[in-house]
Amino acid sequence: MTNGTTKTRVGFIGLGIMGRSMAGHLNTAGHALHVFNRTQARAEPLVAAGAVWHDTPGAVAAAADVVITMVGYPHDVEAIYLGAGGIVERAPHGAVLVDMTTSSPELARRIAEAAAAKGVAALDAPVSGGEGGARDARLSIMVGGDAAAFERVLPLLRLMGSNVVRQGGPGAGQHTKMCNQIVIASTMLGVCEGLAYARRSGLDPETVLQSIGGGAASSFLLNNLGPRILKGDFAPGFFVEHFIKDMGIAATEAARMGMDLPGLRLTKDLYEELAAQGHRRDGTQVLFKHYER
Amino acid sequence: MTNGTTKTRVGFIGLGIMGRSMAGHLNTAGHALHVFNRTQARAEPLVAAGAVWHDTPGAVAAAADVVITMVGYPHDVEAIYLGAGGIVERAPHGAVLVDMTTSSPELARRIAEAAAAKGVAALDAPVSGGEGGARDARLSIMVGGDAAAFERVLPLLRLMGSNVVRQGGPGAGQHTKMCNQIVIASTMLGVCEGLAYARRSGLDPETVLQSIGGGAASSFLLNNLGPRILKGDFAPGFFVEHFIKDMGIAATEAARMGMDLPGLRLTKDLYEELAAQGHRRDGTQVLFKHYER
Repeated sequence: MTNGTTKTRVGFIGLGIMGRSMAGHLNTAGHALHVFNRTQARAEPLVAAGAVWHDTPGAVAAAADVVITMVGYPHDVEAIYLGAGGIVERAPHGAVLVDMTTSSPELARRIAEAAAAKGVAALDAPVSGGEGGARDARLSIMVGGDAAAFERVLPLLRLMGSNVVRQGGPGAGQHTKMCNQIVIASTMLGVCEGLAYARRSGLDPETVLQSIGGGAASSFLLNNLGPRILKGDFAPGFFVEHFIKDMGIAATEAARMGMDLPGLRLTKDLYEELAAQGHRRDGTQVLFKHYER
Repeated sequence: MTNGTTKTRVGFIGLGIMGRSMAGHLNTAGHALHVFNRTQARAEPLVAAGAVWHDTPGAVAAAADVVITMVGYPHDVEAIYLGAGGIVERAPHGAVLVDMTTSSPELARRIAEAAAAKGVAALDAPVSGGEGGARDARLSIMVGGDAAAFERVLPLLRLMGSNVVRQGGPGAGQHTKMCNQIVIASTMLGVCEGLAYARRSGLDPETVLQSIGGGAASSFLLNNLGPRILKGDFAPGFFVEHFIKDMGIAATEAARMGMDLPGLRLTKDLYEELAAQGHRRDGTQVLFKHYER
């Protein structure tokens, strides 16, 4: 029912910067879109393009065979899935639910259990690639949950992402996203410390990038955010406040598993300081400013 | 005197894993090589290929127009350059001295001053790219010092490296190498913490790399050392004890400039713990083991 040619009734809940691009790809492909967003005005372009508005997430779920969610925080995910009149309660038997929010692995498992008890499959499928990846359908999508349900929605996920990988059972998508964010945390620390040292020692940091940007120090962050940092461009690709949310989930899960991740802990502390100083809505590269004080 | 066709009398001091490959390229290009190494046996292949052996670094310097050094620690550099009968004392007027050891920016400036007082130019030109980069003449060479002296030796440096950049005056090459190592330190922390979390959470870390290895978390270290870590391969590309040396120089310089680099400090502490546990001569990716205890 979800291959490239047949059309699916797809519910899409959460039409922020990421969600509206992702939903747009599904709509363009001809799927019947049913939508809800906390701020209704943001749904207008999609509704004008044929999507059907519903007044609650539960109502979207009742009208769809596949329900995709892309909301803010784990507490939002919990409310729309597990709350009274929510997605799990109202989804039709046989539906597939796909939470693409970066959220907690533990919550993903609880949702999958609650859904299974109703004959519904729930996948966790967080993404990386940011606003550009969502716009250009080049997201990396990391999926946890039932293999058959994954196969059913794979054609839909491929309309939004260029790298769609099932990582394991319920929660495995969220765990994989946590790995991604843990690697990014300390990598960002290294990039900012290296560039701050370059500037403080009187070097020309752009020239330094010519020497170090192609070798063992090279990374996506060094080569993409490094030049922006040096131009003083701290506009968000990815918000500090969202990164803090993600690192908080990772830290909680790590603690639950008895792991100490001092690099993650340090980076999270530094970002929390920056957030307290008014940098919540800056891009994550603003960590550089910690070293310029 | 050092363009691609004319031949130069080149002194090369320090024929370890890196130095012997680098000196070999100069010899192959037809330059007249004069060599010294603490362990004489290591010079034999080069001597068999035509290089002239000398019994002291000073004697090498007296016989050469360009002197290149690639030794171990800053105290070795200080001894061979500034010691009695050393390189600065015995180098002929007009010579160019090139220290390619990763060493202290402050020492590089002192050597350049002492050399200038004798009518000799001294450059600091540390490298990155490791054993493979030395073997394949693909090193990144970061140079500090006099611009005219740099131009004179550039044809020689290009026989050893594919990315040769002058970063500024005396010490700027070493400062650039410190930037490189500072970025690597915390990036390695992120890679090891992310992969350790992957394994602990029950994911298949190789599959995780398929999801995260192409996006914002990607780095040379993640994509090159990550797979080796997961195979349990901790053989040295770059020794823990050398990385500790480099981070120590960076930490000292940062403190001198009044900078606090907590990511560097944390990573250095973790490596010192590993060194104390017998991992001095393992590759730097052994940091992963800190998280597997």
